[in-house]
Amino acid sequence: MKFEIKDRDAAGRICRFTTKHGTVKTPNLMPVINPNKMVITPSEMKKLFGTEIVITNSYIIKKDDKLREKALAEGLHKLIDFDGSIMTDSGTFQSYVYGDVDVEPLEIVEFQKKIGSDIGTILDVFGTPEQTFKEAEEGIKETLKRAKQSAEIKEDMILSTPVQGSVHPELRLNCAKELSKIGGDFYPIGGVVPLMENQRYTDLINVILSSKKGLDPSKPVHLFGAGHPMIFPLAVALGCDFFDSSAYIKYAVDDRLIFTWGTEKLDDISELPCSCPICSSYSAEELKKMSKKERIVNIAKHNLYVSFAELKKIRNAISQGSLWELVEERAHSNPYLLEALNILKLDENKEWLEKFEPVSKNKAMFYTGNHTYHRPIIHRIHKRLEERFEKKSNIYIVLPEGKKPFSSHYAQEIKQIYQINNKVNVIVDSSLGPVPVELGEMYPFAQSVFPGFTDEETEKRISKSFRDFTKDGDVICWRGLSTLNEIEPFEDDFDFDLKTISAVSDIQFGSGSGTVLLDGKVKIVKSKKTSKIRNIYCNEQHVLSMRAHDGMFTLKANGAKLLHKKFKSPYMRVIVKNDAVDFIKEGKSVFAKFVEDCDPELRPLDECLIVDKKDNLLAVGRCILNRLEMLSFDYGMAVKTREKI
Amino acid sequence: MKFEIKDRDAAGRICRFTTKHGTVKTPNLMPVINPNKMVITPSEMKKLFGTEIVITNSYIIKKDDKLREKALAEGLHKLIDFDGSIMTDSGTFQSYVYGDVDVEPLEIVEFQKKIGSDIGTILDVFGTPEQTFKEAEEGIKETLKRAKQSAEIKEDMILSTPVQGSVHPELRLNCAKELSKIGGDFYPIGGVVPLMENQRYTDLINVILSSKKGLDPSKPVHLFGAGHPMIFPLAVALGCDFFDSSAYIKYAVDDRLIFTWGTEKLDDISELPCSCPICSSYSAEELKKMSKKERIVNIAKHNLYVSFAELKKIRNAISQGSLWELVEERAHSNPYLLEALNILKLDENKEWLEKFEPVSKNKAMFYTGNHTYHRPIIHRIHKRLEERFEKKSNIYIVLPEGKKPFSSHYAQEIKQIYQINNKVNVIVDSSLGPVPVELGEMYPFAQSVFPGFTDEETEKRISKSFRDFTKDGDVICWRGLSTLNEIEPFEDDFDFDLKTISAVSDIQFGSGSGTVLLDGKVKIVKSKKTSKIRNIYCNEQHVLSMRAHDGMFTLKANGAKLLHKKFKSPYMRVIVKNDAVDFIKEGKSVFAKFVEDCDPELRPLDECLIVDKKDNLLAVGRCILNRLEMLSFDYGMAVKTREKI
Repeated sequence: MKFEIKDRDAAGRICRFTTKHGTVKTPNLMPVINPNKMVITPSEMKKLFGTEIVITNSYIIKKDDKLREKALAEGLHKLIDFDGSIMTDSGTFQSYVYGDVDVEPLEIVEFQKKIGSDIGTILDVFGTPEQTFKEAEEGIKETLKRAKQSAEIKEDMILSTPVQGSVHPELRLNCAKELSKIGGDFYPIGGVVPLMENQRYTDLINVILSSKKGLDPSKPVHLFGAGHPMIFPLAVALGCDFFDSSAYIKYAVDDRLIFTWGTEKLDDISELPCSCPICSSYSAEELKKMSKKERIVNIAKHNLYVSFAELKKIRNAISQGSLWELVEERAHSNPYLLEALNILKLDENKEWLEKFEPVSKNKAMFYTGNHTYHRPIIHRIHKRLEERFEKKSNIYIVLPEGKKPFSSHYAQEIKQIYQINNKVNVIVDSSLGPVPVELGEMYPFAQSVFPGFTDEETEKRISKSFRDFTKDGDVICWRGLSTLNEIEPFEDDFDFDLKTISAVSDIQFGSGSGTVLLDGKVKIVKSKKTSKIRNIYCNEQHVLSMRAHDGMFTLKANGAKLLHKKFKSPYMRVIVKNDAVDFIKEGKSVFAKFVEDCDPELRPLDECLIVDKKDNLLAVGRCILNRLEMLSFDYGMAVKTREKI
Repeated sequence: MKFEIKDRDAAGRICRFTTKHGTVKTPNLMPVINPNKMVITPSEMKKLFGTEIVITNSYIIKKDDKLREKALAEGLHKLIDFDGSIMTDSGTFQSYVYGDVDVEPLEIVEFQKKIGSDIGTILDVFGTPEQTFKEAEEGIKETLKRAKQSAEIKEDMILSTPVQGSVHPELRLNCAKELSKIGGDFYPIGGVVPLMENQRYTDLINVILSSKKGLDPSKPVHLFGAGHPMIFPLAVALGCDFFDSSAYIKYAVDDRLIFTWGTEKLDDISELPCSCPICSSYSAEELKKMSKKERIVNIAKHNLYVSFAELKKIRNAISQGSLWELVEERAHSNPYLLEALNILKLDENKEWLEKFEPVSKNKAMFYTGNHTYHRPIIHRIHKRLEERFEKKSNIYIVLPEGKKPFSSHYAQEIKQIYQINNKVNVIVDSSLGPVPVELGEMYPFAQSVFPGFTDEETEKRISKSFRDFTKDGDVICWRGLSTLNEIEPFEDDFDFDLKTISAVSDIQFGSGSGTVLLDGKVKIVKSKKTSKIRNIYCNEQHVLSMRAHDGMFTLKANGAKLLHKKFKSPYMRVIVKNDAVDFIKEGKSVFAKFVEDCDPELRPLDECLIVDKKDNLLAVGRCILNRLEMLSFDYGMAVKTREKI
């Protein structure tokens, strides 16, 4: 099994997952195949929806003489006529529904191996939401025992070991931690179907979060039994990689159509609210008049078109950096999902999510409602402002929200103020909270779209952020030129570009880094076209380049040397193993398995110093993974090296 | 021309619109056809997207020798090879873009008539958003003059006379009122393209609302130049019936794809976030690699698939009664659209919208965010509660929000309280505001889905509604059985069913109606299956039936007689013209053109008394239209008669 991160947003990720039967792009959906009755065959799914992986039930196959014999003789892939990856379930869900199953835990693992399943699942103990703490604990104990025994006999089958623990976060966390120590490869989050059936999304989020917090981040996570696209964006944003759907066919049999906002009965639909090939070919009336058999096939296809399109949308949002926007937008179509998002307003959850949040994105941040202000990126910028921004005094001149970037919009005012006193803090009272004008071109301050008035809840939060930031000082609100009279003059050189470089550097690389990088004769080269800062030289050494799209710095080798000299390990470091040193010195990127350790403060897309174990600086690069990921992934890039030393 | 309302929700409507070339279902979209260059032909559009009506430009045809000759010789429909309805534009937009046009106002109307346009447009004066009040006023004066002159020569062509007035609401209102007096048939709202291009949605809503407030409600309204599906739901909810799209092809030429949440450049897309036949057949990579020509056709098709699917979705939402949910959901994907919705929180707008809002819907009301509480239906229920609900005393026993319907959930508590004192008001502190338990099964109190916690803004509004409702009295919060000790005993008969019937009746038919309908020996027949109230007899006369799906009454002939006797005209009346009396007496429904007048308080789906001019009661029925509509529509049903007297 190979599993590597190719792109990311929120705590979600686009990965390449490789089994014996090929490579799957995640997040992805496994349609459930009933080997007894394939309404749409896996190969047809591949053709129509680009299906790369399916799931079927080994217990059902084992119980049926004909299926069992064929599977044992010709293999699972022949049985369902699919040459892609196949996961098998073990009968756990049957034991939940019918109370018991007629198979031994290791027997079913052996059987899955024998029929050639790519991903085989242990017979775990299904934890229902009604379980007491004690009951859930007992179930986990048994699940862990079986997982351990199954791992010993898995051979080259990818072993799926589900996380259980009912709705008790501490049990989920512990179960996840324990499973991560056993030799499983693939982690479903189990026992969630009853939560989804009852729209208990707050519980669902808590279950996903507590499981994810305990799981080895380098392994695929599967939200077991989740096949409704309504929860895909949120589940992906929290780190789920796989879904499986029997919903597409179950609902079709019941004349129900799946949409991203829920499920609707065909009878309640006057016009098909969808653009998929089925809904573009037939009217609601025509569907209603079809034979039952034909209708089931068509609704099932519609259901899969919608589900796979949502996954394309999610992966596209990850590439664009707009996954949170999609999560929030979708939540606004279901009251319970929207309520559940409030869980993400808790600091403990923000802090976990923040570790995975990239520091920059391809697309501007969009306001969608009162949840936007609680996104991890806002949590981070407020934290970095507090910890890393060097205030020049305790005087704050406050400009009202204006056009972005603020530094250009208020160029005149900034000049006027700083010419009188360049030791005051000039900040904009923006919809993202207080923004020092020096940071006006940096992501997300410039790359964000908020309306003039957001909502009462957000406005209250913004005010609070503002008060927190200025609480130690005097606040002077800008009311035009007359405001200048209120500012105590202070004679000094004034160079806004230097202030900008220093401030952005501090936020990106830590407090004091600006001083280090600009300690000497500074030369600033600007773009001829846009007259924006492009390259910064200090004592004739190229130390920094500013990126046009996010107003953040690319750290050059010369800059890296200065920071390396100034700040002690592990600050900004990614420490590589001895084996990798020669490669890095040649300018090659750092693969996760060669990472010895790294600064826990580094975040995806942060600039970093690549060093050997003796802290010799080898190269400068950009993190692809955070520390948790670097230390656990076996495959894929951890740091994209930009420049060797 | 025929135009009649078939279904409705918010201030939106599904209508049948008939021209010489057939019938069109509205709301609908007219793709713009460039007669010089048809990338997708109208007949192909009909096949692929079910296109029923298109728009093309008569000025462009007239200016081109070949096109003009062919159009004059063979007619417009042959020219573009389309047998459906065709609207033509006049060159107004060209005069806005190029400063002037080379045609006289009446000349272009004559030309449109000659080539056989179904809907011809006058050469109005395009009002830009930058116009001063004075400039806009001048433009309107000229537009009105031309409209009047054009109306005189229109013959059997449907004449389209656009509303102008820049962004000045009073001018829009006046222009709309004046146009409604002239003989036009079809009202575009003009001059809005620059607003949409600059995402000035607040201005756009104000323009639509002020135009609609002045326009004859019986005529089709066309948001001229609006072709982006992002604003379709909102525009329809405010009463727009037609859109026209050149966006589908303009954007395609520029490699931009239209989505319901905005427009994206193909280059910025890694995976196509859509299920339409184009996006289900090709990957983003394949589209990027196509020849430019092939790509334009495919993106144009995608753009039209998405646009027409959104219209199907809108019409489906109207049938289901979930148009506001769709409007709000869509707004949460664009910060400016979301901000613009705040305009609908103003009382003056709520009051206008409330006149068109049906009193009951097929689907439960869904909470989507802080705009939900401002929907016209909530405005109405609070108003009807205040004006029509008869409080029994100034003592309020308050139950916390519980499962719906409250009357069943709290059956035990209600009984305990009323057995001690049935003159207190027992109310639930719900997410829709204060709900007297007697109304617990009535729409929307029972048919609504709100989470336990909504949002801070909504919670504040809920508290305020609650305080307003109870401000005159003593509030006792329910804290379990011990609360009973706080209630002053009052000996009286206790019959919760009677209370319920009386309260629902008062809310539906007005204060005091319950007393009138129950004045005698009452017999209540309940459903054997659900034990819910079904039929109510008073003195052995069947007066009311309760509908299971919305907990509201169907008024029976015997009940109607009682209300008719008690309340003076025009209370609850729809007064029909003499011509119609005999038909109504036979039990036929009331068509709009036979309505003489009606109670201004009647709303769509309200029960009503159908009377002749001398106030003889003829029948009882259910309103399809409100008063404004009844008095202006020439076609379609105004009241569905249920029972003759």
